[in-house]
Amino acid sequence: MSAAASAESPPPPPANIISGKVISAVIRAEIKTDCESIASKVVPGLAVILVGARPDSMAYVRMKKKACAECGIDSFGYDYPETVTQQELMDKIAELNADPKVHGILVQLPLPDNIIENEVTSAVDPAKDVDGLHPVNCAKLVTAQTHGGSVKMNWKDLSSIPFHIACTPQGCIELLDRSGVDIEGKRAVIIGRSNLVGMPVSLLLNHRNATITIVHSRTKDAQSVVKEADIVVAAVGRALMVKADWLKEGAVVIDVGINSVDAPDTKKGYRLVGDVDFKECEGKCSKITPVPGGVGPMTIAMLLRNTVNSAKRAAGV
Amino acid sequence: MSAAASAESPPPPPANIISGKVISAVIRAEIKTDCESIASKVVPGLAVILVGARPDSMAYVRMKKKACAECGIDSFGYDYPETVTQQELMDKIAELNADPKVHGILVQLPLPDNIIENEVTSAVDPAKDVDGLHPVNCAKLVTAQTHGGSVKMNWKDLSSIPFHIACTPQGCIELLDRSGVDIEGKRAVIIGRSNLVGMPVSLLLNHRNATITIVHSRTKDAQSVVKEADIVVAAVGRALMVKADWLKEGAVVIDVGINSVDAPDTKKGYRLVGDVDFKECEGKCSKITPVPGGVGPMTIAMLLRNTVNSAKRAAGV
Repeated sequence: MSAAASAESPPPPPANIISGKVISAVIRAEIKTDCESIASKVVPGLAVILVGARPDSMAYVRMKKKACAECGIDSFGYDYPETVTQQELMDKIAELNADPKVHGILVQLPLPDNIIENEVTSAVDPAKDVDGLHPVNCAKLVTAQTHGGSVKMNWKDLSSIPFHIACTPQGCIELLDRSGVDIEGKRAVIIGRSNLVGMPVSLLLNHRNATITIVHSRTKDAQSVVKEADIVVAAVGRALMVKADWLKEGAVVIDVGINSVDAPDTKKGYRLVGDVDFKECEGKCSKITPVPGGVGPMTIAMLLRNTVNSAKRAAGV
Repeated sequence: MSAAASAESPPPPPANIISGKVISAVIRAEIKTDCESIASKVVPGLAVILVGARPDSMAYVRMKKKACAECGIDSFGYDYPETVTQQELMDKIAELNADPKVHGILVQLPLPDNIIENEVTSAVDPAKDVDGLHPVNCAKLVTAQTHGGSVKMNWKDLSSIPFHIACTPQGCIELLDRSGVDIEGKRAVIIGRSNLVGMPVSLLLNHRNATITIVHSRTKDAQSVVKEADIVVAAVGRALMVKADWLKEGAVVIDVGINSVDAPDTKKGYRLVGDVDFKECEGKCSKITPVPGGVGPMTIAMLLRNTVNSAKRAAGV
């Protein structure tokens, strides 16, 4: 490498850091190329429903729409006030289910208290459920079967799976794969058992032939259970819970947690940290994701990929 | 106990044996009482679809119908030749879904090769899916949510869960509960990850706050993983695989396996054994199920209970 090139490029991340920033940029470039190659047949379209004016939800929706535009995916926004009724949302979803320009429907969560959230997410056509939250898609993830057929799944290529898998769990697996981590036969410990992350990522790791153990608030001596793991996925939402002495030497750590902690010395007054004490653990891991810049950027990349895959299936491309 | 009574009663099973025979008899008596108490309002009805003439399937169907009759549940049999079409089965299921006298629909598996099995099981109304195989019921078991509501589940009383749970996994938990085994906080290792047993029993143990580990054919050093377990559920279908040196002293063992092994010295020429080497392991376990007479009899008992619960929900009792 010439001195000039080296001066221009940002320094590569240290060898043991799994950079979601770098990996998600690669995936987005792939998606863009993919969209260009199918553009004459279909333009993928994502409908985004936003209720109320939560600043975090509004920021996420903005980021998702921007990411769509950069890749060549159409996005259609539907913004509702807090006072929207269940029926209005259900009617809109029925309309979007029937709209051939829409290949993915995203309902930004959380919804206000007067809305029954899982009734809304269950109303989305499973084929357009790019968030992977519909019960039919959850069931397929457990049973590893397409109901009404017996297609053999290739879990080594999640992009080939013919139904939608939740974005964050899918992003975790993609990070492992693209960092050259071998999952087969490894002991994986998942900390947290939420429907959005812990459970689906456990099921995905099981499909990839890891031996999974799920740790939760009622687990006795979580530390010694985590210490058995070759691969740790922390998705519990407790700042800096996992310390260096929880880890086996050389473990691979995927940190899904994004926790805000007070930081009076900073401008914002807070900073974001993971469920894993990165500073303490970094030296002990063979690979580890940082927070931010680890799993976070992968979630949107997987949403885009689900949308494009949905469009391809709809168009028979 | 008087000498006379003791002479009449069969000897109780040894203290560390979990007898499915005894426990299922208790449950069936409860179900009978339950049916009597609701008889003026609703008579539970189970429709049983049998395709072909496999001797094992015919025997199971016969046992299920007999068990229904003994408890006060109506059973309706629909027998089809091997040559039945997918459409004929789908039409019958649509008819049974609409029939108010039918509260449970059981399709005896396996179906012939020309029938798409999961298309048939998915056609059953989830509310009548007493086998717990419908994707909607599978999804509810993962997410622990009733879609379209947010009822708090009481996993300590499976009979109270407002959707159908697969019978054999449910039977395993019932055996533990009725033998006084505390599940909360225990390490449970499940051997086997089938859709019918391994996965759902893992999910149930997780809901009961066990820390679960799922062992399968790709697990490295399965023996040492199993040795970590306070509770072992063997559901892999390999005769006598689990030996005494696989177990922690005092482990509780639920053996779901039913394997036929050659036994030239017997009249039948074979005998049934579990996945666990009972003779070797019995002395090391605090509790263990025998094969036969362990999990087996529980499956039918849970089918009956699912049917009665379904009838109660339909009748609003």
